[in-house]
Amino acid sequence: MKYELTILAEDTPGVLAHIVDLIRRRSFNIATMSVGFTEEKNITRISIVLYADNDMVIEQLKRQIDKLMNVTKVVNLTKLDYLARELSMVKVKADPVTRADIMNIVSIFRAHIIDINHETLVIELTGAPDKIDALIAMLEPYSIIEVARTASLTMCRGPVPIKDM
Amino acid sequence: MKYELTILAEDTPGVLAHIVDLIRRRSFNIATMSVGFTEEKNITRISIVLYADNDMVIEQLKRQIDKLMNVTKVVNLTKLDYLARELSMVKVKADPVTRADIMNIVSIFRAHIIDINHETLVIELTGAPDKIDALIAMLEPYSIIEVARTASLTMCRGPVPIKDM
Repeated sequence: MKYELTILAEDTPGVLAHIVDLIRRRSFNIATMSVGFTEEKNITRISIVLYADNDMVIEQLKRQIDKLMNVTKVVNLTKLDYLARELSMVKVKADPVTRADIMNIVSIFRAHIIDINHETLVIELTGAPDKIDALIAMLEPYSIIEVARTASLTMCRGPVPIKDM
Repeated sequence: MKYELTILAEDTPGVLAHIVDLIRRRSFNIATMSVGFTEEKNITRISIVLYADNDMVIEQLKRQIDKLMNVTKVVNLTKLDYLARELSMVKVKADPVTRADIMNIVSIFRAHIIDINHETLVIELTGAPDKIDALIAMLEPYSIIEVARTASLTMCRGPVPIKDM
């Protein structure tokens, strides 16, 4: 099963290494991860997607991360009501013949073309992970050169921030 | 000075921990990081932003990461011509009086409201990091509850993918 954890930690050297190392030692493999800035200057927000057999091992992992120095909050979002968005860039082959078709697909997905040259286009799309999967599937016949995707960025619905949960 | 590295690595347990640990041991602090899927099933793309005094130490770090098991490519994008986009979510206080003002700001930035309740709004914005900084600055007077940001997702302009550079 897929699990989503969000961690708040002080932005000090080593804290990210400790978290990643703890997850590795517990034999979880991180599928995707995002480490970014927050509303507080010295606090980093880490979103992790990983797979596990059951809720119990994730709760154990959560407690262990919580005990690490400089970690201020760990929330298992999986069963909460939360927003998840991913950012992606797709570089696809495009010549004057195929370009119009590709632009139609881009427009249907409300994606954006952010780079163009004689051979390729780069398309940017933000959305739920399955929307990005669908765009990539539609572009596959044109020959995809490169795909870059962030981890899902997550935030709970409603007025309460993660730090107060 | 700010540096952007993009790493391609096989999606095997431990590879991320080795990279993060190497960077920590060399006394660099990772500012932001993104670990996500690519066009190849078993290849993970890792984008890292870090600060260093000069190019030489970054070139050294790059060579050391390159030597790690399961790392297939390391590129220092800093002086190349590349695209960089960040995804952000901002939860801001909004009541019936302030909501219209906030919606005007959202529309100017071409951002999107992705959650609403009686007390708050969640705004999604994708763009260059300084555009996101500008949105946050404009929303500050309304009281920001929570900010989540990914690392910059990067891709070189032109037809060549990172893996062939």
